[in-house]
Amino acid sequence: MIDFRSDNTGRAAPQVLDALVRANHGTALGYGGDDWTAALQRRFSELFETAVRVFPVATGTAANALSLASVGPSWGIVYCSEAAHINTAEANATGFFGGGVKLAAVAGSHGKIAAEPLAETLAAISPGQLHRGQPSAVSLTQASDLGAVYTLDEIHAVAEVAKARGLKLHMDGARFANAVARLGCSPAELTWRVGIDIMSFGATKNGGALCDAIIVFSPGIAEGVAVQLRRAGQVWSKMRFASAQLIAYIEDDLWLEMARSSNGMAARIAEGLRDIRAACLLAPVEANEIFLELPSTTMDALEADSFQFYRRSRSLARFVCRFDTTEAEADALVTALRRHLVHSHSVAAGR
Amino acid sequence: MIDFRSDNTGRAAPQVLDALVRANHGTALGYGGDDWTAALQRRFSELFETAVRVFPVATGTAANALSLASVGPSWGIVYCSEAAHINTAEANATGFFGGGVKLAAVAGSHGKIAAEPLAETLAAISPGQLHRGQPSAVSLTQASDLGAVYTLDEIHAVAEVAKARGLKLHMDGARFANAVARLGCSPAELTWRVGIDIMSFGATKNGGALCDAIIVFSPGIAEGVAVQLRRAGQVWSKMRFASAQLIAYIEDDLWLEMARSSNGMAARIAEGLRDIRAACLLAPVEANEIFLELPSTTMDALEADSFQFYRRSRSLARFVCRFDTTEAEADALVTALRRHLVHSHSVAAGR
Amino acid sequence: MIDFRSDNTGRAAPQVLDALVRANHGTALGYGGDDWTAALQRRFSELFETAVRVFPVATGTAANALSLASVGPSWGIVYCSEAAHINTAEANATGFFGGGVKLAAVAGSHGKIAAEPLAETLAAISPGQLHRGQPSAVSLTQASDLGAVYTLDEIHAVAEVAKARGLKLHMDGARFANAVARLGCSPAELTWRVGIDIMSFGATKNGGALCDAIIVFSPGIAEGVAVQLRRAGQVWSKMRFASAQLIAYIEDDLWLEMARSSNGMAARIAEGLRDIRAACLLAPVEANEIFLELPSTTMDALEADSFQFYRRSRSLARFVCRFDTTEAEADALVTALRRHLVHSHSVAAGR
Amino acid sequence: MIDFRSDNTGRAAPQVLDALVRANHGTALGYGGDDWTAALQRRFSELFETAVRVFPVATGTAANALSLASVGPSWGIVYCSEAAHINTAEANATGFFGGGVKLAAVAGSHGKIAAEPLAETLAAISPGQLHRGQPSAVSLTQASDLGAVYTLDEIHAVAEVAKARGLKLHMDGARFANAVARLGCSPAELTWRVGIDIMSFGATKNGGALCDAIIVFSPGIAEGVAVQLRRAGQVWSKMRFASAQLIAYIEDDLWLEMARSSNGMAARIAEGLRDIRAACLLAPVEANEIFLELPSTTMDALEADSFQFYRRSRSLARFVCRFDTTEAEADALVTALRRHLVHSHSVAAGR
Repeated sequence: MIDFRSDNTGRAAPQVLDALVRANHGTALGYGGDDWTAALQRRFSELFETAVRVFPVATGTAANALSLASVGPSWGIVYCSEAAHINTAEANATGFFGGGVKLAAVAGSHGKIAAEPLAETLAAISPGQLHRGQPSAVSLTQASDLGAVYTLDEIHAVAEVAKARGLKLHMDGARFANAVARLGCSPAELTWRVGIDIMSFGATKNGGALCDAIIVFSPGIAEGVAVQLRRAGQVWSKMRFASAQLIAYIEDDLWLEMARSSNGMAARIAEGLRDIRAACLLAPVEANEIFLELPSTTMDALEADSFQFYRRSRSLARFVCRFDTTEAEADALVTALRRHLVHSHSVAAGR
Repeated sequence: MIDFRSDNTGRAAPQVLDALVRANHGTALGYGGDDWTAALQRRFSELFETAVRVFPVATGTAANALSLASVGPSWGIVYCSEAAHINTAEANATGFFGGGVKLAAVAGSHGKIAAEPLAETLAAISPGQLHRGQPSAVSLTQASDLGAVYTLDEIHAVAEVAKARGLKLHMDGARFANAVARLGCSPAELTWRVGIDIMSFGATKNGGALCDAIIVFSPGIAEGVAVQLRRAGQVWSKMRFASAQLIAYIEDDLWLEMARSSNGMAARIAEGLRDIRAACLLAPVEANEIFLELPSTTMDALEADSFQFYRRSRSLARFVCRFDTTEAEADALVTALRRHLVHSHSVAAGR
Repeated sequence: MIDFRSDNTGRAAPQVLDALVRANHGTALGYGGDDWTAALQRRFSELFETAVRVFPVATGTAANALSLASVGPSWGIVYCSEAAHINTAEANATGFFGGGVKLAAVAGSHGKIAAEPLAETLAAISPGQLHRGQPSAVSLTQASDLGAVYTLDEIHAVAEVAKARGLKLHMDGARFANAVARLGCSPAELTWRVGIDIMSFGATKNGGALCDAIIVFSPGIAEGVAVQLRRAGQVWSKMRFASAQLIAYIEDDLWLEMARSSNGMAARIAEGLRDIRAACLLAPVEANEIFLELPSTTMDALEADSFQFYRRSRSLARFVCRFDTTEAEADALVTALRRHLVHSHSVAAGR
Repeated sequence: MIDFRSDNTGRAAPQVLDALVRANHGTALGYGGDDWTAALQRRFSELFETAVRVFPVATGTAANALSLASVGPSWGIVYCSEAAHINTAEANATGFFGGGVKLAAVAGSHGKIAAEPLAETLAAISPGQLHRGQPSAVSLTQASDLGAVYTLDEIHAVAEVAKARGLKLHMDGARFANAVARLGCSPAELTWRVGIDIMSFGATKNGGALCDAIIVFSPGIAEGVAVQLRRAGQVWSKMRFASAQLIAYIEDDLWLEMARSSNGMAARIAEGLRDIRAACLLAPVEANEIFLELPSTTMDALEADSFQFYRRSRSLARFVCRFDTTEAEADALVTALRRHLVHSHSVAAGR
């Protein structure tokens, strides 16, 4: 079996688990009062070139929902892409943790929000109107849920519209490493320097094991996050085991190295498909995911070939590269796709 | 420093971390669709001698709040001890996850609920009364938050009252291992056989690392738990790393061995204090915690001696033994206490 | 000024207020334990030809949100029209009272849900999938928020799809009287006989004053409604003053007489516009609302003529007839529209 | 039957209903955009000698819960008396609307909070502690739920402690009129001048019909109240009918006149009981309620005499005077009590 199902079906980076095991000595104050968690604050503040607060959490859903619950009132409206994970796949955690917060979809391409439709949406709700809830935040998924990456300019344009209305900016960075690797910019440039107030910092999908993190850039938000995390059962008493993982994750650019690898494999596949006319990509391949429109018979054939992947609809397949996806695996997929698509194309053309 | 602060300041059992590391091979379906999580269901069903559903979660707070949110409506009242962790130390997570569920304290000794005051409380709310919320569940902390252990008969008596009114029964088993080790009964006898519908199964305080679990005994509850966990951000995508820990935790009676050790050290300390008249215990020492009424000057002196422990009030100290607390550490504490208490007693008596 | 802004800008029927005043004698048990509220149960059970539970509430938002909170779990998904009041104008009350319930829009014409897209939506969520929340209910707005009315067949088709999946059916009957008057069927035929489990029974928009009601058809739901209403602050202690209003509202077919009148005025206007080619209706006029696409200059001109109405967008005007809208007012609007539209059309055509 | 059950079993003042009926002319903008609601703001601002925001709501439960939901975060702790209506009789509405807000009881006499135990409670929670939720507000019930009235000094002392910790102050004024009438001070002196930020202004229990109100004194709170009321289904579209009631309620001191009357009847009863040694009052009679410890046989006898009242326990009876309770009714109660208590006392003494 060759597994392209998801970046969460994969292993953890050995370095991450080694760090966890190495943290197992002596006693340490609970609930984040330990040396590892203190070091975590310093390392991430260095990484982001500003003083940040880092809160390890168990999952990306927790990171997203609790971030969004902390940046606005329970009657807030959070704008996001129709395709955003918070909108399609988190069992309405944002509405739940936010005490009624409503998600509203804003148009844009490839799983991204565009500035202009956001501006139009906001213009249609005048500040005095109480019957809809109140615009409170924008959530950007970087990389997007369709495998695209916001440019700095795109984020800047959205941020400008949002900030003009006093909205907070959240980034769902479940695949933040892939976006940084893609753009070659610094983590700071991609976040607080362009107006992000709070982010979900993903590790699990990129070689992590059991934790992601919330990173708070804007002062005044962190206190609410801290107590909400406690109430949410997201504060490990033996926090050192989580903090140690996250420190190892960014040490020596491990996280970027892994993201470069998974991005590279996705790009290799996309490159391999370039000359296959029947291979229709749903979005540009800018991170580690490939969304390909395929006849269901082709999907059947791929599975018969022992490829694993997700069918997002009857005619849409998703292939995800992990940090340890190999060139051989990537090439095998291209070869199989070429065989099935060119063949079926020829057959169809021959009819 | 000799650390008696908490059972969460300690290390994890090496076996637990080894299992986590050993799970790091190959790919596996996310969100609990993996082989380790399937094995977890089997092992715990064997352990409890009945088919159970096991849901790994990050913390005991999550286990408690989500268990209680799953056994009654949002307008329910959950009865617990005044001293219960859910009431004193979880930032009202039960009220939050329960959508407004209210905790109500019921009297009893040593952090336990007694059957008679529960019966009286229930008798005072007639079923038709809508203005108070509706009695829905009872939560028993086993071992209690004051270091005592419910006997089977005590649980049976509470369960009988609760079931007669149609209430569900939850056990907060953050220190369940200590209770089983103390009573020498089977896990089944202490839970579903005496009417427990759902439990929080603690591992962290007893040599675990990053997960506890919810165990569901009563059919019909598990579906709600499953979707609520997802919404709560408590379902790891790489679940195998959690399930592997929990399997190792119960393998070869590791969990009971560790609990016997920490119980034994607490008993050793209690035994050492028996003939010190000034050593006044708040509750019988039946698990791994010792609550001792001490003058604050004695607490100062112990800290000066390099002992670490928590001051629960100006005159109440808590000492907790971990699975790796040594006889030497226990004896050192007894010696120090003897020195300070007998000395100050003599001084006081001599006045 | 001639007011077509809304059916809530109008007076109450004198009979409704008379009944309220007549209830002001003697003492009566609070919170609905009075004779008026008992009579209310009987009268509505007669009206609906089955034993119903009636709960007076202050507003339609309360009726909708609390109905929906009572028919499914907090992780439920409620399907409704994109245009539904619960989705566009109630400040996410459904999400709030439902503890996180999510609204999902289903396609259809003129503010109605159609059976086929509902079936497709449901087919795309398999029962085991936990990451989206769980389909729990369908809410039908009758008459719709665009002034159309579901036929019995349309409701039947939606109900069949919903019931096959075990979903509950809610009817938002803020303008239920208008729908009954339009269809000429019985209240029973339009509700429980076609599968409605619970409804919001509107009175305010149709000559009521300070209350609407929740009507429960399906046994097993009412208990949850009762306690949730208490918690929601929707149970008046002097309930008789609400119940008396609702009894008067349906007495001697007053409610239908008023609805026939407002429907009739809307039909009169629509009829008057029939031969004006530039008068483009957004939806068929089947109740008491008219949605007309108009140039903003025409809207300006109408306002200069002293007509009051709402601009739903730059090119969409809404005109609502009340039970006491007169033929003279209706005719005046037609005359003015004719003048402006034919004139501007001629001007435009002459360019 | 002579009814002493509650002040909510009674009639409304005819003036209040007259005003409601008189508001039934012409059309008016919905949801509070009408002239009556504008006038309401002015009249109450005059009454309270400062610019206030007044929000009519359906019930006191709504007023309390939404006030408290607006003065602190969802992880807040609200301190109140054990006997407070919000704690004993509102189905945990505060926890629900507050999104998890927790009520904590503070000691004091006769249903009041005292400053010293509040100070001690707050001192035991250090600001950094996250595991309990965060102290956010204090709720004072004036008059108290046991019929006592806070003096200005008592409120001042509680306010000083609360404000020193940054807590907001809420007054549950379900019987505010009775307290003002008792103390003879101005509404301003009893509220914002002594630090109250927001209050529930009761009318229903004192001659109102279908509405109470939230009054906001502190700027910055009102916006959150406004949108939360909308979401709570507490904003009538035909608001004029509520506002007109509240205006009439305070016009020409009607509210105080009614409260003086009900207070007077309660005082007359208390005075009548003074020389009956067996008549044991639970609290001083300072408003319109009398809590009397009585043998259950005496309660049986009173009921046989056609008196209606509530049994709060087997040995505690509550008698409430309404604005239209007559001297004859009050005297009849005294006579009956004298007969039963002196008789049973003599019999008991004679044994």
